[in-house]
Amino acid sequence: MNNINETINKVNNKLKIGIIGLGRIGQVHLAALKTLKDVDVVAISDISPDLIKKTVEEYQIPNFYTDYRLLLHQKDIDAVWICSPTTYHFTQVKEALDNNKFVFCEKPLDAELSKIETLINSYSDLSLRLMVGFNRRFDPDFATVKKRLQEIGKPVIIKITSRDPFPPSAEYSRQSGGIYNDMSIHDLDMARFISGSEVEEVIAIGSKNYTEDIDTTLITLKFKNGIICNIDNSRKASYGYDQRLEVLGHDGMISAENKKITNVQFYSDSNIQSSVLEPFFLERYKQSYIEEAKEFITAIKEKKEFPSTANDALQASILANACGQSLEKKQMIFL
Amino acid sequence: MNNINETINKVNNKLKIGIIGLGRIGQVHLAALKTLKDVDVVAISDISPDLIKKTVEEYQIPNFYTDYRLLLHQKDIDAVWICSPTTYHFTQVKEALDNNKFVFCEKPLDAELSKIETLINSYSDLSLRLMVGFNRRFDPDFATVKKRLQEIGKPVIIKITSRDPFPPSAEYSRQSGGIYNDMSIHDLDMARFISGSEVEEVIAIGSKNYTEDIDTTLITLKFKNGIICNIDNSRKASYGYDQRLEVLGHDGMISAENKKITNVQFYSDSNIQSSVLEPFFLERYKQSYIEEAKEFITAIKEKKEFPSTANDALQASILANACGQSLEKKQMIFL
Amino acid sequence: MNNINETINKVNNKLKIGIIGLGRIGQVHLAALKTLKDVDVVAISDISPDLIKKTVEEYQIPNFYTDYRLLLHQKDIDAVWICSPTTYHFTQVKEALDNNKFVFCEKPLDAELSKIETLINSYSDLSLRLMVGFNRRFDPDFATVKKRLQEIGKPVIIKITSRDPFPPSAEYSRQSGGIYNDMSIHDLDMARFISGSEVEEVIAIGSKNYTEDIDTTLITLKFKNGIICNIDNSRKASYGYDQRLEVLGHDGMISAENKKITNVQFYSDSNIQSSVLEPFFLERYKQSYIEEAKEFITAIKEKKEFPSTANDALQASILANACGQSLEKKQMIFL
Amino acid sequence: MNNINETINKVNNKLKIGIIGLGRIGQVHLAALKTLKDVDVVAISDISPDLIKKTVEEYQIPNFYTDYRLLLHQKDIDAVWICSPTTYHFTQVKEALDNNKFVFCEKPLDAELSKIETLINSYSDLSLRLMVGFNRRFDPDFATVKKRLQEIGKPVIIKITSRDPFPPSAEYSRQSGGIYNDMSIHDLDMARFISGSEVEEVIAIGSKNYTEDIDTTLITLKFKNGIICNIDNSRKASYGYDQRLEVLGHDGMISAENKKITNVQFYSDSNIQSSVLEPFFLERYKQSYIEEAKEFITAIKEKKEFPSTANDALQASILANACGQSLEKKQMIFL
Repeated sequence: MNNINETINKVNNKLKIGIIGLGRIGQVHLAALKTLKDVDVVAISDISPDLIKKTVEEYQIPNFYTDYRLLLHQKDIDAVWICSPTTYHFTQVKEALDNNKFVFCEKPLDAELSKIETLINSYSDLSLRLMVGFNRRFDPDFATVKKRLQEIGKPVIIKITSRDPFPPSAEYSRQSGGIYNDMSIHDLDMARFISGSEVEEVIAIGSKNYTEDIDTTLITLKFKNGIICNIDNSRKASYGYDQRLEVLGHDGMISAENKKITNVQFYSDSNIQSSVLEPFFLERYKQSYIEEAKEFITAIKEKKEFPSTANDALQASILANACGQSLEKKQMIFL
Repeated sequence: MNNINETINKVNNKLKIGIIGLGRIGQVHLAALKTLKDVDVVAISDISPDLIKKTVEEYQIPNFYTDYRLLLHQKDIDAVWICSPTTYHFTQVKEALDNNKFVFCEKPLDAELSKIETLINSYSDLSLRLMVGFNRRFDPDFATVKKRLQEIGKPVIIKITSRDPFPPSAEYSRQSGGIYNDMSIHDLDMARFISGSEVEEVIAIGSKNYTEDIDTTLITLKFKNGIICNIDNSRKASYGYDQRLEVLGHDGMISAENKKITNVQFYSDSNIQSSVLEPFFLERYKQSYIEEAKEFITAIKEKKEFPSTANDALQASILANACGQSLEKKQMIFL
Repeated sequence: MNNINETINKVNNKLKIGIIGLGRIGQVHLAALKTLKDVDVVAISDISPDLIKKTVEEYQIPNFYTDYRLLLHQKDIDAVWICSPTTYHFTQVKEALDNNKFVFCEKPLDAELSKIETLINSYSDLSLRLMVGFNRRFDPDFATVKKRLQEIGKPVIIKITSRDPFPPSAEYSRQSGGIYNDMSIHDLDMARFISGSEVEEVIAIGSKNYTEDIDTTLITLKFKNGIICNIDNSRKASYGYDQRLEVLGHDGMISAENKKITNVQFYSDSNIQSSVLEPFFLERYKQSYIEEAKEFITAIKEKKEFPSTANDALQASILANACGQSLEKKQMIFL
Repeated sequence: MNNINETINKVNNKLKIGIIGLGRIGQVHLAALKTLKDVDVVAISDISPDLIKKTVEEYQIPNFYTDYRLLLHQKDIDAVWICSPTTYHFTQVKEALDNNKFVFCEKPLDAELSKIETLINSYSDLSLRLMVGFNRRFDPDFATVKKRLQEIGKPVIIKITSRDPFPPSAEYSRQSGGIYNDMSIHDLDMARFISGSEVEEVIAIGSKNYTEDIDTTLITLKFKNGIICNIDNSRKASYGYDQRLEVLGHDGMISAENKKITNVQFYSDSNIQSSVLEPFFLERYKQSYIEEAKEFITAIKEKKEFPSTANDALQASILANACGQSLEKKQMIFL
């Protein structure tokens, strides 16, 4: 605990941040962090010198490394943002923690439950030191649903729709760990987040339409507090990135509807046309990455638990695995 | 006054109604009256035997005449619905009143202001005996706007959009008395109805796009109570019958938006399509004719003034004429 | 077959109809039939003389009976509308068919699958003679979804939301046969109607919130053609009668959204308020009963199968039973 | 012309920009410019050392001056952004042009028409060198309306609603030049932009509700190409910043509706609540400032006229003055 307190005390004005991994999601986080006034991105690391060069030119970052370990040893860095491929997460998270950095790690924490459990068991104060990137929790619309939940009375049904605009490449699909670990995991986390409870029953059915794997699925959950939940996922929605949430309670309903690109309406002879949806997650969830970074900083400053933790990562992965089992065995899975 | 009280006393259970004129608007009123439980349509009249035959067959009306005077002399009739062409209105209204009938007359009461004034001056209790058909006042949406008006605080701006789906035939257009007397008159009445005040300044500009007359116009009104109002009319709206009302007040805004035929949404690759609007007034204002008839009956039963009177007809016609003058002289008209 | 052809030949101008049962749903059908020009309701029957009296007074029906058998033996009647309590359906349908009447029967045809099967097995041409009242198929919005289905490409997910505004009385609940036979049966039929296929896998989970029975449920179906479907039902939706349908296809999505009572919008300081939904089925599905009656008449005139048959009733009941089993056993049910 | 070509040639990679005036609108432009990759804000100037200090700390700008003339003489600056109070615009624009800088100037260019005319007459190639900040033209929604205008056929009616959320302070109101020069000028420019024509007739009426000046107004315009236009402005809209545009054409209608803060819907017993509008112009038009800056840069790189010029500023001011005259004289003003 000593070390953490030291680290926290260091954080006076601006939090000094290093980013490991400059691929797509790394760029998203870097852009989000650059909009904040109380952080300084002081170092970056990637195995690709080209990516480093491009990023330094655009953002004038003073320190850059091809070896992430050099970044982890840079003394003045308070917090590390791990945006590397999943296979590196476990090692980098551990090393960052052992170097007394606050750590933000993209989901999934690891493909193997046992490794996530190892992390959880190795650090008693992990929820004060490691935040896992379930960015949708910080989307302003979904966060508003969560915040206003008590206004609908006791919740009874949660419905989540989450559909990607187009199926991934065959290669990506193969490496992704399947639809449940790759796509549904976000929605399973959202269901836990909204319900405030843990799942006791899981059922999943699915179909193959665009790929060689299950690419369309319906998941049904029953939570310990009695809430029942349906998630529908599809690897393809030709009309755009469909992201909806709805909660029915004893005294009302609250929903977060899709975001359209414009508010333009076109009145033709045969219909009234409104705008398509935001195309994909970079646009749809742009603000969520900024809010997520703010929450990371706030938690550090206020010395409180991060709002999405290693345990959340573990529970979401357990649920994703249960979906896969249910699909295969055509049975309800009891947790 | 004696006679009216007698007439009122006769009305015990069902109000007995005769309809003069079985054209399009006559059929609309007949269909509306047939949905009500406390009226009996006991007689109809039209110069066309074919129309009479068709109507009797469909609705089994016991009495029918080609001469409307016979209907007016039928003793057991309490109220007469005048749905004949405008040129007959004045004479038939007078004769009906003189036969101690309650009268409903379609707008306009007459093309000439002087005749409407003659009617008003001839019957001291006219507002208890004659209702004029400004059906839009009874549309459930517009009536809701009126009813909830105090919730937005003192009103400051009224905006009315009223566009027909397609321009009338050249012949109709010529006989119609022009866009202000034919179309705008409904909106001018709506503006008076919503404002609860009288106009003191009128300006109109317009353009000819589809016909040889002004077919597109913007009307601006200033009311004595300070409210300012804009009306936009067009003889053509290729996307359907566009009927909207909006009131801005000190503490909020209330609006009545268009009605779509269905609530079906179609999500394509390039847009999200919703249904077109109700095609024209028969569909859009169907319910208003039923509510109008109910209000007619209620006023009789409760011995109170009708909710749209000869004076309303007069004022709307005065405004329509002022619009025409403003357009011609390119000046503000002061009333 | 002779008899049917005779019956069909009798139908020249107006179809002569008798109605058995004048309770709530009987009144709905009577009102719907009275809006149609090519039918005559010539006889009614109910065990309650009061209901008969009230109905004759309102609609001037020439023949009325407290014994439905007299109605079935009235020679000039072409078609019989069975709106009595469920327990009478089987007997009355049989007797009506045996009297060579066309028959419309409200759902459910019978609480017992075996009786429905008996009917199906007893009349080889049953689908030309008996229509079962799945009125929602004829709702203009849902019918539009069905009609335009090919525009979204191969369907993959169907989602149905169907929630009553308030829970039934304890007594009704007890007699209703449970949520699956009472409420979900409509949605199970809708799923079959939209999918154009039969179910092979059923899963249901539920919870008890407002009553002593399951009153909130999620049903998941897998159809033989690969479509997967989610139905969510609740005995209570404090905000009104929530009835939605959505179909995702390879090339788009089509949905039928809720109907609001008005199109009025109220802009306050803290939100923009639109109208509540239609309160319950009498209002929401009013038009569907009219369209249903039209389809009944059209099928007879064109000598084609009715659009909702005894087999549809059987399949929906099989699915409702499967839901109950799945819930109880916490297992997927294979059909 | 030599000088301009030189200036253009200097622009190789990043455009070097200096900003004069760091008040509210200066900060908006600075934030917008910092999101762009092909510009460098290399200098700022303000009379307030505090504002300079705060801004340098936040954005690390290398050069800063309390005397704007020093900025104008900084050789490596390509373009100057004039965000000072209106009274300085004329002098600073002239000096900047005379120092061979490209100039972006916030509207209004000057309160006096004669000075704008002086500028126009002094520089033959002014539209290649000076852009005036009518930011709403670059709002993605309004720009979409403009871009798709040909899809609705010949335009006949333009309607613009533009209402501020709350009235300005008495002091601001007094200095603002009145509602027409302060608020309506944006909408008058929008009307010209959308119509692609010049106005020949102007009428304005108004009322005083919240301030000692006209704070609520309806403007009617007739354009040379026959389009008629209504603008409604209010200094107060308790429900938020109301910004709408609608164009009716021969073959359809296109509109830009308001932006709501979230897409959350709340279903209560008495209504369905959606989110309030974006609160004010900083939020509502955030993207427009970024797009405006992009257009400025593009025009320079492609050596083409700026999309909003001194002539646009002149015409909008002429219209604002005409509105004031019409209101005062209660007459139509002919231009």
